[in-house]
Amino acid sequence: MSNAQQKPTTAESTLADIVSHAKEYGFVFPSSEIYDGLAAVYDYGPYGVELKNNLKQLWWRAMTQLNQNVVGIDAAIFMHPTTWKASGHVDGFSDPLIDNLDSKKRYRADVLVEDKAAEYENAGDKARADALLVELGRLLTENDLAGVKQLILDEKILCPISKTANWTEVRQFNLMFSTQVGAVAGDSSQIYLRPETAQGIFVNFLNVQKSARAKVPFGIAQIGKAFRNEIVARQFIFRMREFEQMEMQFFVRPGTEGEWYQQWKETRRRWHEAMGLPAAKLRFHDHEKLAHYAKAAVDIEYEFPFGFKEIEGIHSRGDFDLTQHQQYSRKKQNYFDNDVNPETGKPYGNYVPYVVETSVGADRLFLATLCQAFQEETITEGEGEKQQTKTRKLLKLHPAVAPIKAAIFPLVKKDGLPEKANEIYNSLRHDFPLVVEEKDSIGTRYTRQDLIGTPFCVAVDHQTLEDNTVTVRHRDSREQTRMPIADLRAYIGEAVSFARIFEQL
Amino acid sequence: MSNAQQKPTTAESTLADIVSHAKEYGFVFPSSEIYDGLAAVYDYGPYGVELKNNLKQLWWRAMTQLNQNVVGIDAAIFMHPTTWKASGHVDGFSDPLIDNLDSKKRYRADVLVEDKAAEYENAGDKARADALLVELGRLLTENDLAGVKQLILDEKILCPISKTANWTEVRQFNLMFSTQVGAVAGDSSQIYLRPETAQGIFVNFLNVQKSARAKVPFGIAQIGKAFRNEIVARQFIFRMREFEQMEMQFFVRPGTEGEWYQQWKETRRRWHEAMGLPAAKLRFHDHEKLAHYAKAAVDIEYEFPFGFKEIEGIHSRGDFDLTQHQQYSRKKQNYFDNDVNPETGKPYGNYVPYVVETSVGADRLFLATLCQAFQEETITEGEGEKQQTKTRKLLKLHPAVAPIKAAIFPLVKKDGLPEKANEIYNSLRHDFPLVVEEKDSIGTRYTRQDLIGTPFCVAVDHQTLEDNTVTVRHRDSREQTRMPIADLRAYIGEAVSFARIFEQL
Repeated sequence: MSNAQQKPTTAESTLADIVSHAKEYGFVFPSSEIYDGLAAVYDYGPYGVELKNNLKQLWWRAMTQLNQNVVGIDAAIFMHPTTWKASGHVDGFSDPLIDNLDSKKRYRADVLVEDKAAEYENAGDKARADALLVELGRLLTENDLAGVKQLILDEKILCPISKTANWTEVRQFNLMFSTQVGAVAGDSSQIYLRPETAQGIFVNFLNVQKSARAKVPFGIAQIGKAFRNEIVARQFIFRMREFEQMEMQFFVRPGTEGEWYQQWKETRRRWHEAMGLPAAKLRFHDHEKLAHYAKAAVDIEYEFPFGFKEIEGIHSRGDFDLTQHQQYSRKKQNYFDNDVNPETGKPYGNYVPYVVETSVGADRLFLATLCQAFQEETITEGEGEKQQTKTRKLLKLHPAVAPIKAAIFPLVKKDGLPEKANEIYNSLRHDFPLVVEEKDSIGTRYTRQDLIGTPFCVAVDHQTLEDNTVTVRHRDSREQTRMPIADLRAYIGEAVSFARIFEQL
Repeated sequence: MSNAQQKPTTAESTLADIVSHAKEYGFVFPSSEIYDGLAAVYDYGPYGVELKNNLKQLWWRAMTQLNQNVVGIDAAIFMHPTTWKASGHVDGFSDPLIDNLDSKKRYRADVLVEDKAAEYENAGDKARADALLVELGRLLTENDLAGVKQLILDEKILCPISKTANWTEVRQFNLMFSTQVGAVAGDSSQIYLRPETAQGIFVNFLNVQKSARAKVPFGIAQIGKAFRNEIVARQFIFRMREFEQMEMQFFVRPGTEGEWYQQWKETRRRWHEAMGLPAAKLRFHDHEKLAHYAKAAVDIEYEFPFGFKEIEGIHSRGDFDLTQHQQYSRKKQNYFDNDVNPETGKPYGNYVPYVVETSVGADRLFLATLCQAFQEETITEGEGEKQQTKTRKLLKLHPAVAPIKAAIFPLVKKDGLPEKANEIYNSLRHDFPLVVEEKDSIGTRYTRQDLIGTPFCVAVDHQTLEDNTVTVRHRDSREQTRMPIADLRAYIGEAVSFARIFEQL
């Protein structure tokens, strides 16, 4: 095996390739697969959980450790049901559904119309497609469900199963999962699985502010599960019924939200780039339609194999949430600001802070990271007459988020080389995740680690027994470096450190 | 402020002290407190989430990083409902409940009897108390619910509200929370919130084994939420309706489970001691009654202010779980063992592995850690005539799990000291969590950090501006050391490193 001199060429991979790779190499499994799975739910496998944990920790530490004025919390999934009344979810968090009376199948009415528009576009009639989407948008904004039904009839949209237009009315269906808590007769009550983590931060605003002695502006960060009973769950782990959010609510003095919104927008984009998503595949997408609580909102989108899609949202939420909770709980959500207002010469005094939110979908970020890393290269190996061209697949993960930092290979399964490999493993295992692999040829072992995204392979050979040096092979360049065992900790440790990412923020 | 020479004396703290400290200092808040809380659900505050994350990470890394043959997963909370049929939870995971017809209140029948036994014991009649508990145990084992009702009548146990014995029959009440998933007409189905994380490991056994190319014996570790609709939720975060488990299922060749059970028992106890729970407050408690799946089971108990209680269970589960899933899914859960059996000279071949489980309640571990750390000391300060005795409260957390590793204090808010403190913060923030505190006297600031458990305080004074040295004050000894700023990273970093704990394992 020689070092390739030629720059590899890279082909675009498809979502299907990634789904299959994720399962075969232990990143993502369909949930409860032995029972034929559970729709729109997935499990993270041995390498997936390490990658996801690294991404979560990188976000958490960038938020709470690099910023003096951001602290974390971990609120429960179960919350008092009035929370969701106050937040607007009980009344407004729903999808328009329609049933076909012949097939007994239920659909999202808006998706039926969107699919029809896609048909027009595929047939070359983009104007008609656009007009249809504009009309749909208008009807939904006005909550004109009868209008949506009429649109479906006018467009002669048929049920894909029964092929009839025998439709029910369109109704709103709430996306929150509910359950019964408590068993005391007459005292059992319906609660919800939180559909977002943000409200766990809002209801704890004063507890956190007081116990951490925080001064506005300050942020509260949280990572946690949320649940939505999605009707149309698509695109692998992009839209799941159970998913994980990484949210930060930044509380600011009213009037300063514009500058903080700009600042967090840039900070968050820089973070994505620093951890490995290239600028060319990221874009901002301003919301044209704003949610009822929002004053400004932008998505950071990544170009997935299925197009540019949101991985993070930054929202200027004003005082909507705290004011709502104040009203429903009848508990003041005020902050007293001691800082002097230069215009009046007096302290700013009491106010309900405004909020700028940054909200990452952890699973979407994971998928973006995987899509970005998954590459197929054409490489040239050998020299002169032995030169040959072949393709290799690999995961070019940033070393700081790669699941396994180094794989240690005894060249042969004898002569004390496995023992030496284990000695190296034991000397480094306190520091970072490692594996020892003894089986298969060294080339096959390299290939397998490329597919998992391991940045370094450490080969232990007979020379190692003599001079305590090893060969370190680099995943991306396939270059090999001979170095003393004693240097491995610093060499690998430095490469996989979060500090290298933090320096770019 | 001088160094105390006298050894401090320590008083036992009560659960009420700890609950109140946990709230005031940002460790644990009642969930949705502004809506008067949600029973048996709690939120982790700014310092609580850091402490809990450290404990989780310490466990995760000790499991997956120190052992070549343990890998992790992160399975979803939602699982296919047949999982819980196979595991026995649908039919058997229940509490015996009884209603009082006058008060309309519902109770756990076993708890009513246990409370009666406690009454006898408090009145000095331990023999009668014991006899009652033995009888209760017999009836429950035989699932003789009519017998339990009769026992309640015989003992003249009255409803605490109505003061009558007008009881209904005793019925079993399943502890699993359920919800409806999907909205397609006729296709919506009831699923459960998992009551334990273990099954997420069992149903993924083959996916993990194949994708990680694992050889028996090997383990699968997981950290995640589980949910139980507890009727009697008591003792703060010790028994919650939403809680977190840290479980590892270790798959072994049948016949070797005994030695692995012993080994994990010892390994896990050593882990608790290494991270700060003293041997004198830990004990093993063997189960006398074994669950239907268990061949041997032991609890690691910690002595809480309310007595010795389980923080971890180690269970030899045999092949019960994999066999059940094999039967319900009709998919073989076999492993082919290539190792040669010395007795036959042939490979061990196909079998369903046996399982040894280690299962920690993450919230219980958190509570044990907090109870252990929370101390009130009598200390002597000053010398000669100025000597005085006072008490201080502090959290003697192991530096590796403490939420904040160091607090940086500019002595005064002027002369460039705050700027110098921030310069130190910025030079160390990539490495570990820090705070800068400018407000209040230096003594008050030390006190506050003691209460949060911060192991080091770094005072920045006028000398610092001259020679770049600072005073490092140690939480437990209150000793102060002058050292160069340039030494802080290594000095604090070494003290807070997980490696110091790992070395003891």
